[in-house]
Amino acid sequence: MSESKVLSVEDLHTSDAKWVKLKKTTWRDPDGKQRPWEFATRPTRASGGVDAVAILAILRSESGAFAPSTIIIEQFRPPVDRYVVELPAGLIGEGESAEETAIRELEEETGFKASNIIRTSPLLVCDPGMTNANMKLVTVDVPFPERLEMPAQKLEPGEYITARIVEISKLSAVFKEYEKKGFVIDARLSHFASGFEMAETLRQMQP
Amino acid sequence: MSESKVLSVEDLHTSDAKWVKLKKTTWRDPDGKQRPWEFATRPTRASGGVDAVAILAILRSESGAFAPSTIIIEQFRPPVDRYVVELPAGLIGEGESAEETAIRELEEETGFKASNIIRTSPLLVCDPGMTNANMKLVTVDVPFPERLEMPAQKLEPGEYITARIVEISKLSAVFKEYEKKGFVIDARLSHFASGFEMAETLRQMQP
Repeated sequence: MSESKVLSVEDLHTSDAKWVKLKKTTWRDPDGKQRPWEFATRPTRASGGVDAVAILAILRSESGAFAPSTIIIEQFRPPVDRYVVELPAGLIGEGESAEETAIRELEEETGFKASNIIRTSPLLVCDPGMTNANMKLVTVDVPFPERLEMPAQKLEPGEYITARIVEISKLSAVFKEYEKKGFVIDARLSHFASGFEMAETLRQMQP
Repeated sequence: MSESKVLSVEDLHTSDAKWVKLKKTTWRDPDGKQRPWEFATRPTRASGGVDAVAILAILRSESGAFAPSTIIIEQFRPPVDRYVVELPAGLIGEGESAEETAIRELEEETGFKASNIIRTSPLLVCDPGMTNANMKLVTVDVPFPERLEMPAQKLEPGEYITARIVEISKLSAVFKEYEKKGFVIDARLSHFASGFEMAETLRQMQP
Protein backbone atom coordinates (compact mmCIF):
# COMPACT_ATOMS: atom_id res chain seq x y z
CA MET A 1 0.00 0.00 0.00
CA SER A 2 1.34 3.44 -0.96
CA GLU A 3 0.09 6.99 -0.56
CA SER A 4 -2.72 8.06 -2.86
CA LYS A 5 -1.80 10.93 -5.16
CA VAL A 6 -3.15 12.97 -8.06
CA LEU A 7 -1.00 12.39 -11.16
CA SER A 8 -2.65 14.79 -13.62
CA VAL A 9 -5.67 17.06 -14.10
CA GLU A 10 -7.22 17.94 -17.46
CA ASP A 11 -10.26 19.83 -18.77
CA LEU A 12 -13.35 17.69 -19.17
CA HIS A 13 -16.10 18.34 -21.72
CA THR A 14 -19.66 18.20 -20.44
CA SER A 15 -20.56 15.55 -23.01
CA ASP A 16 -17.71 13.27 -21.80
CA ALA A 17 -18.61 13.60 -18.11
CA LYS A 18 -20.48 10.80 -16.35
CA TRP A 19 -20.44 11.81 -12.69
CA VAL A 20 -20.79 15.58 -12.76
CA LYS A 21 -22.39 17.90 -15.34
CA LEU A 22 -22.50 21.64 -15.97
CA LYS A 23 -25.79 23.49 -16.26
CA LYS A 24 -26.83 27.04 -16.92
CA THR A 25 -30.03 28.37 -15.48
CA THR A 26 -31.97 31.49 -16.38
CA TRP A 27 -33.63 32.94 -13.31
CA ARG A 28 -35.82 35.95 -12.64
CA ASP A 29 -34.59 38.28 -9.92
CA PRO A 30 -36.90 40.23 -7.54
CA ASP A 31 -36.87 43.22 -9.94
CA GLY A 32 -38.18 40.99 -12.75
CA LYS A 33 -34.86 40.92 -14.61
CA GLN A 34 -33.68 37.68 -16.24
CA ARG A 35 -30.18 36.59 -15.21
CA PRO A 36 -27.92 33.59 -15.94
CA TRP A 37 -26.31 31.34 -13.30
CA GLU A 38 -23.86 28.51 -13.94
CA PHE A 39 -23.62 25.47 -11.67
CA ALA A 40 -22.57 21.83 -11.42
CA THR A 41 -24.92 18.93 -10.86
CA ARG A 42 -24.76 15.17 -10.22
CA PRO A 43 -26.59 13.14 -12.88
CA THR A 44 -26.82 10.27 -10.37
CA ARG A 45 -29.60 11.76 -8.21
CA ALA A 46 -32.30 9.15 -7.56
CA SER A 47 -35.99 9.90 -8.04
CA GLY A 48 -36.36 10.69 -4.32
CA GLY A 49 -34.61 14.00 -5.07
CA VAL A 50 -31.84 13.65 -2.47
CA ASP A 51 -28.22 13.03 -3.54
CA ALA A 52 -26.59 11.79 -0.37
CA VAL A 53 -26.61 11.23 3.36
CA ALA A 54 -23.99 11.81 6.03
CA ILE A 55 -24.18 9.71 9.16
CA LEU A 56 -23.68 10.98 12.69
CA ALA A 57 -23.38 7.77 14.72
CA ILE A 58 -23.81 8.21 18.47
CA LEU A 59 -21.68 5.48 20.07
CA ARG A 60 -23.10 5.26 23.53
CA SER A 61 -22.20 3.15 26.56
CA GLU A 62 -25.18 1.70 28.37
CA SER A 63 -22.99 1.17 31.45
CA GLY A 64 -21.20 4.52 31.34
CA ALA A 65 -17.92 2.79 30.45
CA PHE A 66 -16.95 5.45 27.88
CA ALA A 67 -17.93 9.00 26.96
CA PRO A 68 -20.41 9.55 24.09
CA SER A 69 -18.43 9.11 20.89
CA THR A 70 -18.86 9.19 17.16
CA ILE A 71 -17.09 7.76 14.17
CA ILE A 72 -15.24 9.76 11.54
CA ILE A 73 -13.55 8.55 8.38
CA GLU A 74 -10.33 9.43 6.58
CA GLN A 75 -10.13 9.05 2.82
CA PHE A 76 -8.17 10.43 -0.11
CA ARG A 77 -10.29 12.79 -2.18
CA PRO A 78 -8.95 13.30 -5.72
CA PRO A 79 -10.74 16.66 -6.35
CA VAL A 80 -8.76 18.27 -3.52
CA ASP A 81 -5.66 15.99 -3.74
CA ARG A 82 -5.67 15.53 0.04
CA TYR A 83 -6.76 13.11 2.71
CA VAL A 84 -10.05 14.42 4.07
CA VAL A 85 -11.69 13.80 7.46
CA GLU A 86 -15.45 13.46 7.11
CA LEU A 87 -18.52 11.86 8.59
CA PRO A 88 -19.38 8.51 7.00
CA ALA A 89 -21.53 9.27 3.95
CA GLY A 90 -22.83 7.90 0.71
CA LEU A 91 -25.02 8.48 -2.31
CA ILE A 92 -28.65 7.38 -2.01
CA GLY A 93 -29.51 4.55 -4.42
CA GLU A 94 -32.68 4.38 -6.52
CA GLY A 95 -35.59 3.25 -4.34
CA GLU A 96 -33.58 3.64 -1.13
CA SER A 97 -34.63 5.89 1.75
CA ALA A 98 -32.17 8.24 3.45
CA GLU A 99 -32.32 6.03 6.55
CA GLU A 100 -31.64 2.83 4.60
CA THR A 101 -28.62 4.45 2.93
CA ALA A 102 -27.36 5.66 6.32
CA ILE A 103 -27.54 2.20 7.90
CA ARG A 104 -25.98 0.53 4.84
CA GLU A 105 -23.14 3.03 4.43
CA LEU A 106 -22.34 3.12 8.15
CA GLU A 107 -21.91 -0.65 8.15
CA GLU A 108 -19.88 -0.69 4.91
CA GLU A 109 -17.55 2.13 5.86
CA THR A 110 -17.16 1.43 9.58
CA GLY A 111 -18.64 -2.00 10.39
CA PHE A 112 -21.00 -0.50 12.99
CA LYS A 113 -24.66 -1.51 12.94
CA ALA A 114 -27.08 1.22 13.98
CA SER A 115 -29.81 0.01 16.34
CA ASN A 116 -32.20 2.79 15.41
CA ILE A 117 -32.55 6.18 13.77
CA ILE A 118 -32.53 9.10 16.21
CA ARG A 119 -33.26 11.83 13.67
CA THR A 120 -33.17 12.58 9.97
CA SER A 121 -32.51 16.21 9.11
CA PRO A 122 -34.59 18.06 6.55
CA LEU A 123 -33.02 18.48 3.12
CA LEU A 124 -29.79 20.51 3.31
CA VAL A 125 -27.90 22.10 0.42
CA CYS A 126 -24.14 21.60 0.29
CA ASP A 127 -22.70 24.57 -1.65
CA PRO A 128 -25.72 26.31 -3.21
CA GLY A 129 -23.80 29.05 -5.05
CA MET A 130 -21.85 26.47 -7.07
CA THR A 131 -23.82 23.20 -7.23
CA ASN A 132 -27.31 21.82 -6.67
CA ALA A 133 -25.90 19.06 -4.42
CA ASN A 134 -28.09 18.24 -1.45
CA MET A 135 -28.05 15.83 1.48
CA LYS A 136 -29.64 14.77 4.73
CA LEU A 137 -27.82 14.24 8.00
CA VAL A 138 -29.00 11.02 9.65
CA THR A 139 -28.23 10.63 13.37
CA VAL A 140 -28.22 7.00 14.49
CA ASP A 141 -27.94 5.24 17.82
CA VAL A 142 -25.19 2.63 18.30
CA PRO A 143 -25.48 1.40 21.91
CA PHE A 144 -22.92 -0.81 23.66
CA PRO A 145 -23.69 -2.80 26.79
CA GLU A 146 -20.06 -2.54 27.84
CA ARG A 147 -16.77 -1.93 26.08
CA LEU A 148 -16.57 -0.14 22.75
CA GLU A 149 -15.10 -2.38 20.10
CA MET A 150 -14.15 -1.55 16.54
CA PRO A 151 -15.81 -3.97 14.12
CA ALA A 152 -14.42 -4.94 10.70
CA GLN A 153 -15.37 -2.70 7.77
CA LYS A 154 -17.16 -4.11 4.71
CA LEU A 155 -15.55 -2.01 2.01
CA GLU A 156 -16.10 -2.59 -1.68
CA PRO A 157 -13.06 -3.16 -3.92
CA GLY A 158 -11.44 0.21 -4.67
CA GLU A 159 -12.72 1.82 -1.45
CA TYR A 160 -9.93 2.92 0.88
CA ILE A 161 -11.41 4.32 4.05
CA THR A 162 -10.00 4.46 7.57
CA ALA A 163 -12.59 4.69 10.34
CA ARG A 164 -11.80 6.21 13.73
CA ILE A 165 -13.75 6.51 16.98
CA VAL A 166 -13.58 9.93 18.65
CA GLU A 167 -15.25 11.30 21.78
CA ILE A 168 -17.75 13.91 20.55
CA SER A 169 -16.42 16.53 22.97
CA LYS A 170 -12.88 16.02 21.62
CA LEU A 171 -13.58 16.48 17.90
CA SER A 172 -12.07 19.96 17.70
CA ALA A 173 -8.89 18.83 19.46
CA VAL A 174 -8.59 15.82 17.15
CA PHE A 175 -8.98 18.07 14.09
CA LYS A 176 -5.99 20.14 15.21
CA GLU A 177 -3.84 16.99 15.16
CA TYR A 178 -5.11 16.06 11.70
CA GLU A 179 -4.29 19.51 10.35
CA LYS A 180 -0.70 19.20 11.60
CA LYS A 181 -0.44 15.95 9.63
CA GLY A 182 -1.65 17.63 6.40
CA PHE A 183 -5.23 16.32 6.40
CA VAL A 184 -8.12 18.69 5.71
CA ILE A 185 -11.49 18.61 7.44
CA ASP A 186 -14.83 18.55 5.64
CA ALA A 187 -16.59 21.89 6.22
CA ARG A 188 -19.81 20.27 7.49
CA LEU A 189 -18.05 18.12 10.07
CA SER A 190 -15.92 21.11 11.10
CA HIS A 191 -19.03 23.28 11.55
CA PHE A 192 -20.58 20.56 13.72
CA ALA A 193 -17.53 20.67 15.99
CA SER A 194 -17.55 24.49 15.99
CA GLY A 195 -21.20 24.49 17.09
CA PHE A 196 -20.38 22.04 19.87
CA GLU A 197 -17.50 24.24 21.03
CA MET A 198 -19.67 27.36 20.87
CA ALA A 199 -22.20 25.80 23.25
CA GLU A 200 -19.38 25.08 25.72
CA THR A 201 -18.02 28.63 25.36
CA LEU A 202 -21.42 30.26 25.93
CA ARG A 203 -22.06 28.06 28.96
CA GLN A 204 -18.76 29.17 30.50
CA MET A 205 -19.66 32.83 29.86
CA GLN A 206 -22.86 32.50 31.86
CA PRO A 207 -22.76 34.01 35.36
CA MET B 1 -40.39 43.26 -5.98
CA SER B 2 -41.53 39.75 -6.90
CA GLU B 3 -40.42 36.25 -5.96
CA SER B 4 -37.20 35.01 -7.54
CA LYS B 5 -37.67 31.96 -9.73
CA VAL B 6 -35.79 29.67 -12.09
CA LEU B 7 -37.26 29.97 -15.61
CA SER B 8 -35.15 27.37 -17.46
CA VAL B 9 -32.12 25.11 -17.14
CA GLU B 10 -29.94 23.96 -20.03
CA ASP B 11 -26.71 21.98 -20.53
CA LEU B 12 -23.59 24.11 -20.48
CA HIS B 13 -20.40 23.26 -22.36
CA THR B 14 -17.17 23.55 -20.41
CA SER B 15 -15.75 25.98 -22.98
CA ASP B 16 -18.76 28.32 -22.55
CA ALA B 17 -18.62 28.32 -18.75
CA LYS B 18 -17.12 31.27 -16.90
CA TRP B 19 -17.90 30.59 -13.23
CA VAL B 20 -17.58 26.83 -12.92
CA LYS B 21 -15.52 24.32 -14.93
CA LEU B 22 -15.31 20.53 -15.20
CA LYS B 23 -12.04 18.69 -14.66
CA LYS B 24 -10.93 15.10 -14.81
CA THR B 25 -8.08 13.93 -12.65
CA THR B 26 -6.03 10.76 -12.86
CA TRP B 27 -5.04 9.59 -9.38
CA ARG B 28 -3.07 6.68 -8.04
CA ASP B 29 -4.83 4.57 -5.44
CA PRO B 30 -3.07 2.84 -2.49
CA ASP B 31 -2.64 -0.32 -4.58
CA GLY B 32 -0.78 1.67 -7.24
CA LYS B 33 -3.65 1.54 -9.72
CA GLN B 34 -4.44 4.63 -11.83
CA ARG B 35 -8.08 5.77 -11.63
CA PRO B 36 -10.12 8.67 -13.05
CA TRP B 37 -12.21 11.12 -10.99
CA GLU B 38 -14.45 13.87 -12.36
CA PHE B 39 -15.11 17.08 -10.46
CA ALA B 40 -16.16 20.73 -10.72
CA THR B 41 -13.94 23.69 -9.95
CA ARG B 42 -14.20 27.48 -9.68
CA PRO B 43 -11.85 29.30 -12.08
CA THR B 44 -12.11 32.38 -9.83
CA ARG B 45 -9.83 31.11 -7.04
CA ALA B 46 -7.31 33.79 -6.09
CA SER B 47 -3.58 33.04 -5.76
CA GLY B 48 -3.98 32.57 -1.98
CA GLY B 49 -5.57 29.20 -2.75
CA VAL B 50 -8.82 29.74 -0.83
CA ASP B 51 -12.13 30.23 -2.65
CA ALA B 52 -14.36 31.72 0.00
CA VAL B 53 -15.09 32.60 3.60
CA ALA B 54 -18.20 32.24 5.73
CA ILE B 55 -18.62 34.60 8.66
CA LEU B 56 -19.83 33.63 12.11
CA ALA B 57 -20.51 36.99 13.75
CA ILE B 58 -20.84 36.88 17.53
CA LEU B 59 -23.22 39.72 18.43
CA ARG B 60 -22.52 40.26 22.07
CA SER B 61 -23.99 42.61 24.68
CA GLU B 62 -21.41 44.25 26.92
CA SER B 63 -24.17 45.01 29.44
CA GLY B 64 -25.92 41.64 29.26
CA ALA B 65 -28.96 43.26 27.58
CA PHE B 66 -29.41 40.37 25.11
CA ALA B 67 -28.30 36.75 24.70
CA PRO B 68 -25.31 35.99 22.45
CA SER B 69 -26.60 36.13 18.90
CA THR B 70 -25.43 35.75 15.34
CA ILE B 71 -26.56 36.89 11.94
CA ILE B 72 -27.85 34.66 9.18
CA ILE B 73 -28.87 35.58 5.66
CA GLU B 74 -31.65 34.51 3.33
CA GLN B 75 -31.10 34.58 -0.41
CA PHE B 76 -32.45 32.94 -3.55
CA ARG B 77 -29.96 30.41 -4.94
CA PRO B 78 -30.58 29.60 -8.62
CA PRO B 79 -28.73 26.21 -8.59
CA VAL B 80 -31.26 24.83 -6.09
CA ASP B 81 -34.23 27.05 -7.11
CA ARG B 82 -34.98 27.82 -3.48
CA TYR B 83 -34.42 30.49 -0.86
CA VAL B 84 -31.48 29.33 1.25
CA VAL B 85 -30.55 30.26 4.82
CA GLU B 86 -26.78 30.59 5.22
CA LEU B 87 -24.06 32.36 7.14
CA PRO B 88 -22.87 35.56 5.47
CA ALA B 89 -20.16 34.56 3.00
CA GLY B 90 -18.22 35.66 -0.03
CA LEU B 91 -15.47 34.85 -2.48
CA ILE B 92 -11.97 36.01 -1.56
CA GLY B 93 -10.62 38.62 -3.98
CA GLU B 94 -7.09 38.64 -5.41
CA GLY B 95 -4.68 39.98 -2.78
CA GLU B 96 -7.30 39.85 -0.04
CA SER B 97 -6.86 37.87 3.19
CA ALA B 98 -9.64 35.64 4.56
CA GLU B 99 -10.09 38.10 7.43
CA GLU B 100 -10.35 41.12 5.11
CA THR B 101 -12.98 39.34 3.01
CA ALA B 102 -14.90 38.41 6.16
CA ILE B 103 -15.01 42.00 7.45
CA ARG B 104 -15.91 43.39 4.01
CA GLU B 105 -18.64 40.84 3.24
CA LEU B 106 -20.16 41.06 6.72
CA GLU B 107 -20.55 44.80 6.32
CA GLU B 108 -21.89 44.55 2.74
CA GLU B 109 -24.40 41.79 3.44
CA THR B 110 -25.51 42.81 6.94
CA GLY B 111 -24.21 46.32 7.73
CA PHE B 112 -22.43 45.07 10.87
CA LYS B 113 -18.82 46.09 11.47
CA ALA B 114 -16.67 43.50 13.20
CA SER B 115 -14.48 44.94 15.96
CA ASN B 116 -11.98 42.10 15.77
CA ILE B 117 -11.32 38.59 14.53
CA ILE B 118 -11.85 35.88 17.15
CA ARG B 119 -10.66 32.96 15.05
CA THR B 120 -9.99 31.89 11.48
CA SER B 121 -10.48 28.19 10.82
CA PRO B 122 -7.97 26.13 8.90
CA LEU B 123 -8.81 25.41 5.27
CA LEU B 124 -12.03 23.37 4.98
CA VAL B 125 -13.32 21.53 1.92
CA CYS B 126 -16.98 21.98 1.00
CA ASP B 127 -18.02 18.84 -0.92
CA PRO B 128 -14.77 17.00 -1.70
CA GLY B 129 -16.30 14.09 -3.64
CA MET B 130 -17.77 16.49 -6.23
CA THR B 131 -15.79 19.73 -6.27
CA ASN B 132 -12.48 21.19 -5.14
CA ALA B 133 -14.27 24.13 -3.46
CA ASN B 134 -12.72 25.23 -0.19
CA MET B 135 -13.33 27.87 2.45
CA LYS B 136 -12.42 29.22 5.86
CA LEU B 137 -14.87 30.02 8.64
CA VAL B 138 -14.00 33.38 10.21
CA THR B 139 -15.50 34.08 13.64
CA VAL B 140 -15.71 37.79 14.44
CA ASP B 141 -16.64 39.83 17.47
CA VAL B 142 -19.40 42.43 17.18
CA PRO B 143 -19.84 43.98 20.64
CA PHE B 144 -22.68 46.31 21.65
CA PRO B 145 -22.52 48.57 24.70
CA GLU B 146 -26.30 48.37 25.01
CA ARG B 147 -29.16 47.58 22.68
CA LEU B 148 -28.70 45.51 19.53
CA GLU B 149 -29.60 47.50 16.45
CA MET B 150 -29.84 46.36 12.86
CA PRO B 151 -27.70 48.57 10.63
CA ALA B 152 -28.36 49.23 6.93
CA GLN B 153 -26.86 46.76 4.45
CA LYS B 154 -24.49 47.90 1.71
CA LEU B 155 -25.54 45.57 -1.07
CA GLU B 156 -24.25 45.83 -4.61
CA PRO B 157 -26.77 46.18 -7.46
CA GLY B 158 -28.22 42.75 -8.23
CA GLU B 159 -27.64 41.44 -4.68
CA TYR B 160 -30.85 40.50 -2.88
CA ILE B 161 -30.06 39.41 0.63
CA THR B 162 -32.15 39.56 3.80
CA ALA B 163 -30.16 39.58 7.05
CA ARG B 164 -31.64 38.37 10.32
CA ILE B 165 -30.38 38.36 13.90
CA VAL B 166 -30.90 35.08 15.80
CA GLU B 167 -29.90 34.01 19.30
CA ILE B 168 -27.24 31.33 18.83
CA SER B 169 -29.05 28.90 21.15
CA LYS B 170 -32.25 29.27 19.07
CA LEU B 171 -30.81 28.50 15.62
CA SER B 172 -32.29 24.99 15.42
CA ALA B 173 -35.74 26.23 16.41
CA VAL B 174 -35.55 29.04 13.85
CA PHE B 175 -34.57 26.54 11.12
CA LYS B 176 -37.74 24.54 11.78
CA GLU B 177 -39.81 27.67 11.05
CA TYR B 178 -37.87 28.30 7.84
CA GLU B 179 -38.43 24.74 6.65
CA LYS B 180 -42.19 25.13 7.14
CA LYS B 181 -42.03 28.19 4.87
CA GLY B 182 -40.20 26.26 2.11
CA PHE B 183 -36.68 27.58 2.70
CA VAL B 184 -33.72 25.20 2.82
CA ILE B 185 -30.79 25.45 5.18
CA ASP B 186 -27.15 25.39 4.09
CA ALA B 187 -25.57 22.14 5.31
CA ARG B 188 -22.65 23.89 7.04
CA LEU B 189 -24.88 26.23 9.02
CA SER B 190 -27.20 23.33 9.86
CA HIS B 191 -24.26 21.23 11.10
CA PHE B 192 -23.14 24.14 13.31
CA ALA B 193 -26.59 24.21 14.92
CA SER B 194 -26.60 20.39 15.25
CA GLY B 195 -23.26 20.53 17.05
CA PHE B 196 -24.60 23.20 19.40
CA GLU B 197 -27.68 21.07 20.14
CA MET B 198 -25.53 17.97 20.67
CA ALA B 199 -23.52 19.75 23.38
CA GLU B 200 -26.76 20.65 25.16
CA THR B 201 -28.06 17.08 24.85
CA LEU B 202 -24.87 15.53 26.23
CA ARG B 203 -24.82 17.98 29.12
CA GLN B 204 -28.37 16.98 30.06
CA MET B 205 -27.41 13.28 29.91
CA GLN B 206 -24.67 13.79 32.49
CA PRO B 207 -25.48 12.61 36.00
